[in-house]
Amino acid sequence: MIQTAAAKLKALRNVLKAEKLNGFIVPRQDEFQGEYVAPYAERLRWLTGFAGSWGTAIVTDKKAAIFVDGRYTTQVRVQTDGKLYTPQHLVDAPPTAWVSANLKKGETLGFDPMLLTVSEARRFQKACAEVGAKLAPVKKNLIDQIWEDQPARSQKPLFVQPDKFAGKSAAQKLKDLAAGLKKAGHVAAFLAEPSSVAWLLNLRGLDVAYTPVVLAYAILHANAKAELFIESSRVPDEVKKALKGIATVYDPKELAARLKKLAKGQVLLDENSAPDHVRAVLEAAKAKVVYGTDPCTMPKAQKNAVEQQGARDAQVRDGAALSNFLHWMSVEGPKGQLDEKAAAASLQKFRQATNMLEDLSFPSISAAGEHAAIPHYFVTDESSAPIKNNEIFLMDSGGQYRDGTTDVTRTMIVGTPTAEMKDRFTRVLKGVIGISVARFPEGTTGAHIDALARNALWQAGLDFDHGTGHGVGSFLSVHEGPARISKASHVPLRPGMILSNEPGYYKPGHFGIRIENLLIVTEPSEIEGGERKMMGFETLTWAPIDRHLIEVKLLTPDELTWLNAYHERVEKELSPRMSGEALVWLKESCAAL
Amino acid sequence: MIQTAAAKLKALRNVLKAEKLNGFIVPRQDEFQGEYVAPYAERLRWLTGFAGSWGTAIVTDKKAAIFVDGRYTTQVRVQTDGKLYTPQHLVDAPPTAWVSANLKKGETLGFDPMLLTVSEARRFQKACAEVGAKLAPVKKNLIDQIWEDQPARSQKPLFVQPDKFAGKSAAQKLKDLAAGLKKAGHVAAFLAEPSSVAWLLNLRGLDVAYTPVVLAYAILHANAKAELFIESSRVPDEVKKALKGIATVYDPKELAARLKKLAKGQVLLDENSAPDHVRAVLEAAKAKVVYGTDPCTMPKAQKNAVEQQGARDAQVRDGAALSNFLHWMSVEGPKGQLDEKAAAASLQKFRQATNMLEDLSFPSISAAGEHAAIPHYFVTDESSAPIKNNEIFLMDSGGQYRDGTTDVTRTMIVGTPTAEMKDRFTRVLKGVIGISVARFPEGTTGAHIDALARNALWQAGLDFDHGTGHGVGSFLSVHEGPARISKASHVPLRPGMILSNEPGYYKPGHFGIRIENLLIVTEPSEIEGGERKMMGFETLTWAPIDRHLIEVKLLTPDELTWLNAYHERVEKELSPRMSGEALVWLKESCAAL
Repeated sequence: MIQTAAAKLKALRNVLKAEKLNGFIVPRQDEFQGEYVAPYAERLRWLTGFAGSWGTAIVTDKKAAIFVDGRYTTQVRVQTDGKLYTPQHLVDAPPTAWVSANLKKGETLGFDPMLLTVSEARRFQKACAEVGAKLAPVKKNLIDQIWEDQPARSQKPLFVQPDKFAGKSAAQKLKDLAAGLKKAGHVAAFLAEPSSVAWLLNLRGLDVAYTPVVLAYAILHANAKAELFIESSRVPDEVKKALKGIATVYDPKELAARLKKLAKGQVLLDENSAPDHVRAVLEAAKAKVVYGTDPCTMPKAQKNAVEQQGARDAQVRDGAALSNFLHWMSVEGPKGQLDEKAAAASLQKFRQATNMLEDLSFPSISAAGEHAAIPHYFVTDESSAPIKNNEIFLMDSGGQYRDGTTDVTRTMIVGTPTAEMKDRFTRVLKGVIGISVARFPEGTTGAHIDALARNALWQAGLDFDHGTGHGVGSFLSVHEGPARISKASHVPLRPGMILSNEPGYYKPGHFGIRIENLLIVTEPSEIEGGERKMMGFETLTWAPIDRHLIEVKLLTPDELTWLNAYHERVEKELSPRMSGEALVWLKESCAAL
Repeated sequence: MIQTAAAKLKALRNVLKAEKLNGFIVPRQDEFQGEYVAPYAERLRWLTGFAGSWGTAIVTDKKAAIFVDGRYTTQVRVQTDGKLYTPQHLVDAPPTAWVSANLKKGETLGFDPMLLTVSEARRFQKACAEVGAKLAPVKKNLIDQIWEDQPARSQKPLFVQPDKFAGKSAAQKLKDLAAGLKKAGHVAAFLAEPSSVAWLLNLRGLDVAYTPVVLAYAILHANAKAELFIESSRVPDEVKKALKGIATVYDPKELAARLKKLAKGQVLLDENSAPDHVRAVLEAAKAKVVYGTDPCTMPKAQKNAVEQQGARDAQVRDGAALSNFLHWMSVEGPKGQLDEKAAAASLQKFRQATNMLEDLSFPSISAAGEHAAIPHYFVTDESSAPIKNNEIFLMDSGGQYRDGTTDVTRTMIVGTPTAEMKDRFTRVLKGVIGISVARFPEGTTGAHIDALARNALWQAGLDFDHGTGHGVGSFLSVHEGPARISKASHVPLRPGMILSNEPGYYKPGHFGIRIENLLIVTEPSEIEGGERKMMGFETLTWAPIDRHLIEVKLLTPDELTWLNAYHERVEKELSPRMSGEALVWLKESCAAL
């Protein structure tokens, strides 16, 4: 069996030769473009050793490069052999530029048309064309040809997300979306996004960790019927019953044949999620491909009343579990015996004690001291650091519950904070409050309000290098589009969207701070004495914000009022779910400042 | 001579027939796409009667429509004959949609290729193609063929903007820009924007009111030489001398011939300002047209140190004139004898008394009572309203000085304000302060900070329906791109840009409020105790903000500190330039609150 990275690379180059290709693209993503991929699809990691969540390698007969973003520039050098792969910055030196620089006229670059989206393939095609080279799809992924012990694909059964959590039947969703397709003249839409398929058909799955999506494509027809592409062995009776009359199940092998049935019709395709293979099949079948946003995107993001109530319930439950953990930390932390792994394990236990936790919603970021300064830090056996006295401890975590997905960050001090820590923490808190109390008219985007989370930091010559917030699914992905609170997000915020509000501050090598609550965007409503209805946010997350880190004199009277009202509500929501010492701690932690 | 709108329309339809056209596009803009056009170019107004600053008519053999934006929906119905022209909303029912709906297969829509930009012509071409019709350039504008008493074009001489105001010689500007062209592989750039031509060659003109631009095209060559297209009779010796060795003057008639000389070269064209005619000539000559932003845009917007100092000087001078006027208003207003025209005339006299006023920078918005609720109100003989007691009076005005262009709005109460007026005024002021004190990292756009001007209004269910600020030229256009402070402005703010900061509040039928200061974007600089350099704003405008309209208890301590410091500075800057009663008034108006 091929073992070393060098042997794997050599094997790949042999296949290149056999397939008469001059190069091959190995992206990290699978055919569903998700953040988490199943073991069988970890091709980039198998080939190069790089284990980050985003990246691409390109291998030619003589050269090989691996492209990663700013988060992974250090990691890639540790995990991959620099003699085999030249690390490149995904943004500053993108793969397409490398292709133009390294391929020659008449050469052919291979790619797996299931793994690149239409728009990605188009970019590579353009880069090849610029130098007279050609981009060509392969029949079978070259890595799959040489990966002898490639894990099998998940065979776990789907399950139904009942209407009592989904809030709307799959039949009704199909009807509503079909009306939109019809109006636009489409005969069908191809759905490549697993969370869209899951949302539309009220199904969930267990194929990847943290995200209960269904790893399957679907075709949504303008007659309100759907086709779902998944092995029938994975469809239990419960699901068969639920799909009866609204969706037909086909084996994934039948995808091309079913797409060909759309010949001459107008088909909606989202070029940022659909595999290039689907475009090619549709075009060959003379279907008229029209590019547009996945029609599930907006209704999935705008949670209905049932989903909203589910989110409220899940967040209170999760907040109580988190608060029990925070109390436990307040007792155990100062003893000096904890490390990051133990803290993460303890929190998971508190969440499991709710008896309703289906999964975590992402690997907990349990970060002590300088680790807290790494926004995307994940604790491993090797990295797990002791939680020391007079240091910051940051916990960013979340759970998957049937009624909602949670994501919450609390930063605490074990021992005594420095004045700098308090200043930074309070400025981050001012940002949290700025977003929480924002009112804004319809049409406002995340880019328009992002500064409200940063203003207090900017005033002090500080900032943080990530977005302020991301969308969150309903028992789906903890990172859900299309809206975000960030400088680059130009999607209008709409009622029912759930967003995180998580400004931070990071001092590399020292400490980091992040405070994160989830919010629901509210309907435009009247304001007393006002003239125009304004949207705003309803806070979903309830857990104490560490009072020891707050410099009260930096808060305006309005901000202090918000904080005290928040803590009063935390106590009210969580008291019935906590007891004993933890309850005493909760009351102390929520007392007015 | 053709007199009535009906007769004009009939005459136009006769020419349509003679030219074998089925329709013709009559835009408001001239071949320089400016806000103000010379009398000879007021074709839309001559044809239809509509006198607004933006709009387009399309006339076919049977139908005629006029397209205006939200500002002009009332005005267009008053000024044009509804039996002849169907008014349409420029955004909701755009001309291109009308073209697709009203032209038929095989028909031809004519347009003047000097008046439509490349991108506009492209849009109309597409709209025609959709229904199988054709868009065709005309040799001579059809309106010019029938407009018997069309005014002559300006023959006013150009003049030099000396280096002591421009801060950089034209030769140096040419060198700097040429280096950029060379690097990008362009042999030349075509400059269609009059303010770019004026800025690049350090020339000014008097062809249109309020804006001392040069109504002329130029070609900038990669060898750092320019060609300027203007009648030689308009080039006095002073200008000839200044252009010697750096630019050659050609008659506008020679434009096509000169463009043809660029055959086979790569030419940079700004599709949003260049006439479609230029594209057509270049393409016919086999030049490679590359679309991109006018290369003067950014260096023109980022004022150099000399221009910045000029702006400071001009604003202090202008602020003293405005403050003398505000004092005069405080005395004359309560007597009840003034009207809007008289107020505007008085302010102009105070500005003229500086002996340095070249022109106003736009027609003063002198608005009393409910007129102040119309953001783009302009006073005319017919509209001029009396300035009444206990009413708001708003004056938005500016001057053109050799060292800088000003634009300032002050809102005052004559008599006693209502609590509502004070509340609204103070919220608008909070917006002004929010922008004034903003600090932000490089890359921040106007869209990112616009909310800082609106937050206090949004919180109360209020808003205003215009951008917060626009760019301002240096003895050039008072509205200058590319940056703005508005939800839709995605151009990063850069040091040296001058922007207005003018939030408002408008209660139709009652009163309106706007407070406007100009600002310069500052270089990124350290903040004590901070880690990252932040940009910010330096305030340029000095004139008292009416204390009678301020509800102090709505201001935060920081906001009150800003206001008092602002007034202290106003007094310091203006005291040396004011005297007598006006000086006493200034000191009272600037006392701490």
